Amino acid sequence: MPFDPASFNPPTRTLMGPGPSDVPPRVLEALSRPTIGHLDPRFVEMMEEVKGLLQYAFMTENALTMPVSAPGSAGMETCFANLVEPGDKVIVCINGVFGGRMKENVVRCGGEAVVVEDEWGSVVDPQKVEAALQAHPDAKILAFVHAETSTGAQSDAATLCRLAGEHGCLTIVDTVTSLGGTPVKVDEWGADAVYSGTQKCLSCVPGLSPVTFSDRALEAVKSRKTPVQSWFLDLNLVLGYWGSGAQRTYHHTAPVNSLYALHEALLILREEGLENAWARHELNHRALKAGLEAMGIGFVVKEGDRLPQLNAVTVPEGVDEAAVRRTLLEEFNLEIGAGLGVLAGKVWRIGLMGHASNRRNVLFCLAALESVLSRMDAPIEKGVAVDAAMAVYD
Amino acid sequence: MPFDPASFNPPTRTLMGPGPSDVPPRVLEALSRPTIGHLDPRFVEMMEEVKGLLQYAFMTENALTMPVSAPGSAGMETCFANLVEPGDKVIVCINGVFGGRMKENVVRCGGEAVVVEDEWGSVVDPQKVEAALQAHPDAKILAFVHAETSTGAQSDAATLCRLAGEHGCLTIVDTVTSLGGTPVKVDEWGADAVYSGTQKCLSCVPGLSPVTFSDRALEAVKSRKTPVQSWFLDLNLVLGYWGSGAQRTYHHTAPVNSLYALHEALLILREEGLENAWARHELNHRALKAGLEAMGIGFVVKEGDRLPQLNAVTVPEGVDEAAVRRTLLEEFNLEIGAGLGVLAGKVWRIGLMGHASNRRNVLFCLAALESVLSRMDAPIEKGVAVDAAMAVYD
Repeated sequence: MPFDPASFNPPTRTLMGPGPSDVPPRVLEALSRPTIGHLDPRFVEMMEEVKGLLQYAFMTENALTMPVSAPGSAGMETCFANLVEPGDKVIVCINGVFGGRMKENVVRCGGEAVVVEDEWGSVVDPQKVEAALQAHPDAKILAFVHAETSTGAQSDAATLCRLAGEHGCLTIVDTVTSLGGTPVKVDEWGADAVYSGTQKCLSCVPGLSPVTFSDRALEAVKSRKTPVQSWFLDLNLVLGYWGSGAQRTYHHTAPVNSLYALHEALLILREEGLENAWARHELNHRALKAGLEAMGIGFVVKEGDRLPQLNAVTVPEGVDEAAVRRTLLEEFNLEIGAGLGVLAGKVWRIGLMGHASNRRNVLFCLAALESVLSRMDAPIEKGVAVDAAMAVYD
Repeated sequence: MPFDPASFNPPTRTLMGPGPSDVPPRVLEALSRPTIGHLDPRFVEMMEEVKGLLQYAFMTENALTMPVSAPGSAGMETCFANLVEPGDKVIVCINGVFGGRMKENVVRCGGEAVVVEDEWGSVVDPQKVEAALQAHPDAKILAFVHAETSTGAQSDAATLCRLAGEHGCLTIVDTVTSLGGTPVKVDEWGADAVYSGTQKCLSCVPGLSPVTFSDRALEAVKSRKTPVQSWFLDLNLVLGYWGSGAQRTYHHTAPVNSLYALHEALLILREEGLENAWARHELNHRALKAGLEAMGIGFVVKEGDRLPQLNAVTVPEGVDEAAVRRTLLEEFNLEIGAGLGVLAGKVWRIGLMGHASNRRNVLFCLAALESVLSRMDAPIEKGVAVDAAMAVYD
């Protein structure tokens, strides 16, 4: 081999992009505990606890609540592959990257996608959704993104789920960026198939995707006329391992250590309490916003529709946005995110997710951003950001 | 919530089942290093090293050599979902659980499976395969399991790949249990799509599936007439992230920490050297075999066809096999595996994989097994196993 790699020692970054977010030491330590067998009775006990803790996080009593053994995209695919049969009509709301990915999933499952489109940065418009539900009484599923990670917009999941229910539709809801950061009330919403990720507001390592299915959704999976096209994601099989009862059937080898980490991350969430976590995300968002606005930097999403944990902000006139991110990373070990899709080059995405949503990070980010932008002679207000943020905390 | 979970502290087991195997402290430590972004330039450098190290392990120069972000079953599905189009004919060799799973994959991809069956515990019969290739000149793919984890049989991959090549077929090869334990010579065999797992002879945590595709196989993926039915596993998209070049396109969030661990596990393999690792697996297998045979316990697979890293052995007459495993786990913290499918209740599967393939484990397992079987009045020879094993090492 022409190369001679050594052990990889990552730099210590501050992760304020769209995820992964900073993982607390307690979770990293849990991750590194000795591996045991995926059918070990002690491990099975822990699996039960993970299910219970996820029910807490999702605010649901759904029996089918578990982590898929792969990242959030596989959680999305779990929902679509299990619920969409060839020919099924699915109303898909697109207001950013992840709605587009949902549509792609529908098509690949042989379904027919009816698209309800809203501008990137806007929330999903319930009126358009209601019109689509009326125009397509044969639709089986309404799919939408609660927290659009590409824009920072938070849609009204309660209303959208209610409309779907009134028209006899199941719902598939993306809560990858919301779970643990803003309210995800699965039972209160009456949502049917909901997926999330571990590397955002749960502050766990990336690689798992928590999902929860209502009994109605599970019934639809069990009464399919065609087999689920994915063997790996087929819930009829996965439940042999993750379902209840002492007897677990081998399906695939679970990612044992990542599940230790998720268990610990969920414990931390429960110790803090969901409501407190939401309030903390809100407070740090307000401080960051005050600082950014004092500098003269605006938001993509209009006030009231914003996710506090994912701030998509506009790049000041004439600034090379990639150079700013590079400098923040190289000089400050600080990661913020680039824009995706139509927003590429125009916005930054500043995450305040989970463990990373704290005052230190808010002040550090504002100070570092101001320093870098000043050197580039960007048209910003100087010397005011940190004070403006501090005023929110005081 | 009716329960009050605390941090999970797993017991320290010795893992001698069919996987996961014991993960060395160096790998667990690497796993727990601080998470960084999946698009961080330093992380991208590490990804390149992982690809190079996997090429070493697979003995290939295939450019498409990378870990899938999910367990071995998803690696299997990556191969089938990308190569099988609706209507494609695939010859599938079944001599255990995983051949059966391959067939299931073919069907779910809309392909037509032609099954070549051999008894569980036997290797795949090249003569039957040749007959099938002749009878089905329109077959596109030959799929077989190199190392059948359910039985411990190792098939002749070189011959099977040669036959496929002579008939213009691509090959899909399961090396989940062989990679790092016995020779997997992808380029020498001329294999086309090969997948493995991290939790067997690589002694890494479970959750990733290394795969390698020949240029010919990649060409077949790129020239598909229909889209790959899985968005998550579509290599046309995954390669935007894992392909070469400085510019990485976001596809899904990579399991960052698990990849640190795989990097470290592959470094350990390279430090030891593939040939030395194979010799170590062979030596410890011979010692275990000597001890078991001295006790009067026989093997499922005939000599010469056995995987040294996975020993399927017959349960002595009249012994409650589950009780033996339970006692080993509870009293000795020692995990050995149960039989699967038609072998359930009849065999144990004793793994000597990766880091766990060492003299301490061989002697410990023999001593513990003899102790438990003696107490159950099993018809075994006593007081001879350890000496017989030691004679192999001397």
